[in-house]
Amino acid sequence: MRKRVFMFNEGGADQRSLLGGKGANLAEMTRLGLPVPPGFTVSTEACIDYYEAGREVEETLVEEIFTRLSDLEAAMDRRFGDPKEPLLVSVRSGAAVSMPGMMDTILNLGLNDETAKGLAEATQDPRFAYDCYRRLIQIFANVVMGLPIGVFEDVLDKHKEKAGVSVDSALGPDVLMEVVAEFKELVRRLAKREFPQDVREQLLLAVEAVFSSWYNNRAAVYRRIHRIAEDLGTAVNVQAMVFGNMGNDSATGVLFTRDPSSGVAAVLGEYLVNAQGEDVVAGLRTPRPIVEMADELPEAYQQLLETAQELEHHYRDMQDIEFTIERRKLFILQTRTGKRTAQAAVRIAYDLVTEGIISAEEAVGRIEPEQVEKMLHRTIDPGAEVEVLAQGLPASPGAATGVVVFDANEAERRGEAGEKVILVRPETAPDDMHGIVQAQGILTSRGGMTCHAAIVARGMGKPAVVGCDELRIDLGKKQAYARGKRLDEGEVITLDGASGKVMRGQVPLVEPDLGGEFQQVLSWGDQMRRLGVRANADTPADAALARKLGAEGIGLCRTEHMFMASDRLPAMQAMILAETEEERKAALERLLPMQKEDFKGILRAMAGYPVTIRLLDPPLHEFLPRIEELVVALGRARDDDLGASDIEEKEELLRKARALSESNPMLGFRGCRLGIVYPEMYAMQARAIFEATAELIKEGQEDIMPEIMIPLVGHAKELAVLEKVVRATAEEVKEEVGLDFPCVVGTMIEVPRSALTADEVAEHAEFFSFGTNDLTQMTFGYSRDDAEAKFLHHYLQEKVLPENPFAVLDEDGVGKLVKMAVNLGRKTRPSLKIGICGEHGGDPASIAFFHRCELDYVSCSPYRVPVARLAAARAQLAG
Amino acid sequence: MRKRVFMFNEGGADQRSLLGGKGANLAEMTRLGLPVPPGFTVSTEACIDYYEAGREVEETLVEEIFTRLSDLEAAMDRRFGDPKEPLLVSVRSGAAVSMPGMMDTILNLGLNDETAKGLAEATQDPRFAYDCYRRLIQIFANVVMGLPIGVFEDVLDKHKEKAGVSVDSALGPDVLMEVVAEFKELVRRLAKREFPQDVREQLLLAVEAVFSSWYNNRAAVYRRIHRIAEDLGTAVNVQAMVFGNMGNDSATGVLFTRDPSSGVAAVLGEYLVNAQGEDVVAGLRTPRPIVEMADELPEAYQQLLETAQELEHHYRDMQDIEFTIERRKLFILQTRTGKRTAQAAVRIAYDLVTEGIISAEEAVGRIEPEQVEKMLHRTIDPGAEVEVLAQGLPASPGAATGVVVFDANEAERRGEAGEKVILVRPETAPDDMHGIVQAQGILTSRGGMTCHAAIVARGMGKPAVVGCDELRIDLGKKQAYARGKRLDEGEVITLDGASGKVMRGQVPLVEPDLGGEFQQVLSWGDQMRRLGVRANADTPADAALARKLGAEGIGLCRTEHMFMASDRLPAMQAMILAETEEERKAALERLLPMQKEDFKGILRAMAGYPVTIRLLDPPLHEFLPRIEELVVALGRARDDDLGASDIEEKEELLRKARALSESNPMLGFRGCRLGIVYPEMYAMQARAIFEATAELIKEGQEDIMPEIMIPLVGHAKELAVLEKVVRATAEEVKEEVGLDFPCVVGTMIEVPRSALTADEVAEHAEFFSFGTNDLTQMTFGYSRDDAEAKFLHHYLQEKVLPENPFAVLDEDGVGKLVKMAVNLGRKTRPSLKIGICGEHGGDPASIAFFHRCELDYVSCSPYRVPVARLAAARAQLAG
Repeated sequence: MRKRVFMFNEGGADQRSLLGGKGANLAEMTRLGLPVPPGFTVSTEACIDYYEAGREVEETLVEEIFTRLSDLEAAMDRRFGDPKEPLLVSVRSGAAVSMPGMMDTILNLGLNDETAKGLAEATQDPRFAYDCYRRLIQIFANVVMGLPIGVFEDVLDKHKEKAGVSVDSALGPDVLMEVVAEFKELVRRLAKREFPQDVREQLLLAVEAVFSSWYNNRAAVYRRIHRIAEDLGTAVNVQAMVFGNMGNDSATGVLFTRDPSSGVAAVLGEYLVNAQGEDVVAGLRTPRPIVEMADELPEAYQQLLETAQELEHHYRDMQDIEFTIERRKLFILQTRTGKRTAQAAVRIAYDLVTEGIISAEEAVGRIEPEQVEKMLHRTIDPGAEVEVLAQGLPASPGAATGVVVFDANEAERRGEAGEKVILVRPETAPDDMHGIVQAQGILTSRGGMTCHAAIVARGMGKPAVVGCDELRIDLGKKQAYARGKRLDEGEVITLDGASGKVMRGQVPLVEPDLGGEFQQVLSWGDQMRRLGVRANADTPADAALARKLGAEGIGLCRTEHMFMASDRLPAMQAMILAETEEERKAALERLLPMQKEDFKGILRAMAGYPVTIRLLDPPLHEFLPRIEELVVALGRARDDDLGASDIEEKEELLRKARALSESNPMLGFRGCRLGIVYPEMYAMQARAIFEATAELIKEGQEDIMPEIMIPLVGHAKELAVLEKVVRATAEEVKEEVGLDFPCVVGTMIEVPRSALTADEVAEHAEFFSFGTNDLTQMTFGYSRDDAEAKFLHHYLQEKVLPENPFAVLDEDGVGKLVKMAVNLGRKTRPSLKIGICGEHGGDPASIAFFHRCELDYVSCSPYRVPVARLAAARAQLAG
Repeated sequence: MRKRVFMFNEGGADQRSLLGGKGANLAEMTRLGLPVPPGFTVSTEACIDYYEAGREVEETLVEEIFTRLSDLEAAMDRRFGDPKEPLLVSVRSGAAVSMPGMMDTILNLGLNDETAKGLAEATQDPRFAYDCYRRLIQIFANVVMGLPIGVFEDVLDKHKEKAGVSVDSALGPDVLMEVVAEFKELVRRLAKREFPQDVREQLLLAVEAVFSSWYNNRAAVYRRIHRIAEDLGTAVNVQAMVFGNMGNDSATGVLFTRDPSSGVAAVLGEYLVNAQGEDVVAGLRTPRPIVEMADELPEAYQQLLETAQELEHHYRDMQDIEFTIERRKLFILQTRTGKRTAQAAVRIAYDLVTEGIISAEEAVGRIEPEQVEKMLHRTIDPGAEVEVLAQGLPASPGAATGVVVFDANEAERRGEAGEKVILVRPETAPDDMHGIVQAQGILTSRGGMTCHAAIVARGMGKPAVVGCDELRIDLGKKQAYARGKRLDEGEVITLDGASGKVMRGQVPLVEPDLGGEFQQVLSWGDQMRRLGVRANADTPADAALARKLGAEGIGLCRTEHMFMASDRLPAMQAMILAETEEERKAALERLLPMQKEDFKGILRAMAGYPVTIRLLDPPLHEFLPRIEELVVALGRARDDDLGASDIEEKEELLRKARALSESNPMLGFRGCRLGIVYPEMYAMQARAIFEATAELIKEGQEDIMPEIMIPLVGHAKELAVLEKVVRATAEEVKEEVGLDFPCVVGTMIEVPRSALTADEVAEHAEFFSFGTNDLTQMTFGYSRDDAEAKFLHHYLQEKVLPENPFAVLDEDGVGKLVKMAVNLGRKTRPSLKIGICGEHGGDPASIAFFHRCELDYVSCSPYRVPVARLAAARAQLAG
């Protein structure tokens, strides 16, 4: 028979998965000789067995628990249920991964009518004994029997009022005995059963309650959010009670070995005299700062500081310690690695390295990449009073304040005039870009984490809250409504893109602090990682920002935004409306110098680093007004009897927009398909890139490294045709300008077929860049724009899918294509450079996968670059 | 040095790729001792070398040709260019695959001013000699020098007029000498060079002209249509001339050993006395039926019949023979396997088997699957006079006559009243189904070979012409225009779905004849094939038809059409509009009995065979009116001030239609995603299937074999969830009806991810059925509805893609996924049954691929079943 219950002195820190984090720690502390009350741990395997047996505690486990209980009785020289001097125990849950939301601690287990009396006699303190007893009934009734806590508090309040006292501890023993009687009656009436007088039944019920809490709602939610597996199970720790409520020389408290908020290397904590643990947690009494203990309980305080130091050195990280002082004697109940803010995580890691306690590798390994991103953005002042108007999805981190504007043109107008605006729309589309550029933040009532607004905002590092479906927007009236309140255009609101909150008025914000520790930790990481990190950037400003944040090049420079600017759109539309190749070429001639200037700006900002420029990708209809708008405009033009040429022009636009409309634009006429049908368009873009390169070289810039990327290739022949167009253009320009420059041509791998035939594709590509957004759409058959609202939300809720595949790369499916493409591509061309430029390029879990796939680099939005740098380093450390 | 020129007696029939078909045949006939004029063949390798050398005839080849020419001179005991008794030769092209459109034959090569005179003297027949000479100049000028043929005919006509004669052969030698002089002058003037007097130069130029013709336009088009590789090259046959124009005891002609039109086992052919080959081809004189030769040239005729018999036995197939009789002596110039109609192909193959000449395997191998389909449909009487109104794409074979109707409702009304109608629409959509059902044929002005109308029509075996873009339809006026003519509603037209022609009026049609030979050949094939053949059928009528055409089950029974019927749509819409699960269940309750009757009908018609039923697949908005229609209807209801409840109902429909609308419906909320979000919907369908099964069993039907197919699965978990729903329903029904029946659950593999993770998917699937339409859409990232018009047409024209991947399965990309899914699926579940039910299931090339992938069956529309049976047999024979 496998052993499933272990005394604390039988285990150690390395048995987290078997004993849970708390159990392993208690065992480790016991092993270190620290003052830990003795006890035993029921293993996680026992919990798993419990579920496998159909939620039944097996008889063999019961026997094992009672055997260990005998050992504990021997160690404490007391007997559980002894009517004279009873042993009391606490029961705590403890999974392998620290997980709030599981069952609360039960203290004082082992008290019943008889033992309570015994305890009163043994301690000569009936107030203490009956206070313990009423606490046990209260917490047991709540946690094990599921009764509401309030009804017990009501009884207590009634008695306090009657006795004319304000704190629990002021109630005398007689009153407390009355309270106990009333509590037991309450249990009988509400739970239809007695509070168990059999102390062994108490223990078994408590153990089972811990097991059950593994599947309670809060725990399940926590696991889902933190991606903790469902089948780990939890351990149960049964520990001899010590009492912080044995008078004014007793206390209980918590201590952090360093400040968990700032990371400053000084202890922080609080304690309560004459109290038990749940008094601290419940917040019924206000605890006092730990430093005050130096005066009140100086010896215990000194011992606590020394123990804290010892624990931090032993565990080599900041500790969160729970302690109790029973009649001046210190007991450590628990220690664990303390949770901390992003700032503190960096500061502590940095300090521990400089203090020689941990290595730089460990420091890097301890900072969660997501914490890093939080540090890059402004945040809501935690002390601020806020009026929350609505709650949406936290689509792009950071906080922003501005006046509400419901229209992109208005946002542009006000923004250019220097006003700070928040663009509020049902959803955004590419033709809102000019407004988004000028806005401080974006708020939409529709869309998911990967809608247009979310992606664009993240790319620009602007705060965004999307899918805020309690917000009803009336574009006509320029008003929005939420929670029964109205919001007018021009009113000031504040968005918190990290929490999804929409607040009224100007809320105080905290500026990000990217101190020297932050830079140092990141640069330690840079030395460790193999995976390169580039940024997705379309403008010189973004490119400069990306450099500042540590990007080693641009992995995706989109060229379509360049055509959206109001001075270029007419030329672009003329190109689209062209009926002949000549007309098209004439329109392209007008675009050429503008494109060239765009490219010069970006290439100059990234001199010395590669810049991967993707040729035109979106369907052409995105450059035309929407059909509905055209219909309206045309109707108005006719009503107003405008000139025939004006009406004709509008008719022509409408005709073309209709001709270009598609039932599935995602799978339509875009990407290299445009380049194949209109090679002159790609030739113009290639020419703009090469002329820009040549001019920069002539200006004396060195290492100008453009890389031309062909999008949406599905068949090697497409790339073969377009590679020829690009290379021929390069030769022409070289001839014209009389100097040589590099011409690097590669392709996106974003169509499943190109991954499947990557060996053929690689014959024409010097590099691959995975477009994992589209690759995910096509591999799953999900339209990102539609899926989230229509069924993906449901899928995630019902766990049909473990993750949102647009946020975390689907390794089993999409990942298989990535691996195939890497292997096939390198088989054909061992020197093939391979990167990824989809949304997943900034996701730490996905980055770890790309590292394992031996990609050369990831590319993400500038604000994700530090995250990716750290994630890449951690991926390398993970091996 | 590799030998590149071969005497006829050096080769044989097995050297087609080296000597070309014609050369190998001439060698083979020489080997058999048949009366073949001697000669030699310049190999296809020499042609390839010619192109590799940049269209240059290498000096070494010239030497080899002249060496063989010496051998030929020796064999004939005449010298090429001999002014006394010159050797003349013919030059013919001959590729490995018979290919019309290549260079014409050049006869009488070797004549010049001097040898013509010599020939006149040697034969004592100057008329003959100068007739040969003028023919040579004429054909050489046209074929080698590229001059138009007409100018020479004009000269000839002028002289015939002057001489007052009507046929060429009536012109005397003096006139012909004048003609020769004028011809040479014409060449000088038009080609700016002399007709070459050097006979060796004539020969080399002719050889080069044959090589060049490999890349001429007609040949290239033919290769593209017939999928012949570009790099095979052509051989050149140089053969000693014999003369069918040496007087009235000479002749030339062609003979088929069997009737190429009907297949009847009797020779058919025609001949011309005193003529050369091109007289027959050119149609300048009307040839006479071959049987008349029995009287005119009895000995030669007898010898011809015997030789024909010998050749047919030797080549074991119907032969198309060219012969010449020179002064009563028979020469065979060429024999090849004769082209034939579909009917003849079947009849001949059948007869050859019964005559013991070929095996059943060979018979099956000789019938092209596409020929079989043609036999299943009515065709246009070849003798009919027709007025072609327009030309579209031949989307679904067969011919149909009816009155033009521009609206599905009108089509339904007239059709139900017994009128024959042709539904004419810009394009069709699922809500036109009721009209399509009642129509004889479909004509659309938009769409490609795989548009909705095309697929539906092929599925129903109805003729369809689609993408007829010269047809302009004015739905408002109920008129259409094409080629400047108008077509009104109610006018009679005839469609030919095999050619894409639209004709005015009632054109006589020929009924299909599926005679005993046809059935016999197909059943021989059935015994050979390993691959099963099922049909896609949604109605009992289709199921019965499928059985008649040899289907061994239904591979795809769609359930969505069942909801489109006008008596069911309201219940379906109520289900969609339901706000709660209860409302939805109530609506489903109404649909249940109707669904059950549908399934009973189909399962009864297919008793003894499996019926794979796909649960609801299309997006729900397909069951609602289109948004534009709703907007119009709502506006009208408001204008007309209809009752509030009516307006409300319309508003509700519009709201829901808007909520269900998607930017990419192809990748949207459909298939099993519906089943996951609304499990009660799939449960209702499963219940209808199982109740139908139980009732049929109770009625005494045996072997009712429904198989439930879950569409659009992309993740194993989806199938796991829905398998559970279906199996639980089966258990419920078994309990209720008190009897057992099979419950088989499987899935479509149509999302790339399900192919990539087929090992996991197979854990929950008893069968896979590849949905290659969607799989192709997602693997290529092509929206079938958009791609054809927007870029696919261009891709095929420019050869960016070798084939339309929606017609012929893309083996390199999509096929790779198919192979992966087969391997992974069978690894998990060796008993996994695997089929395919996309459009490719009826395409012979794709069927061969599926055979090689070791699929268990293909499923296609009923009318493709015989095609698939034959293709499957041929795939097996191909090994």
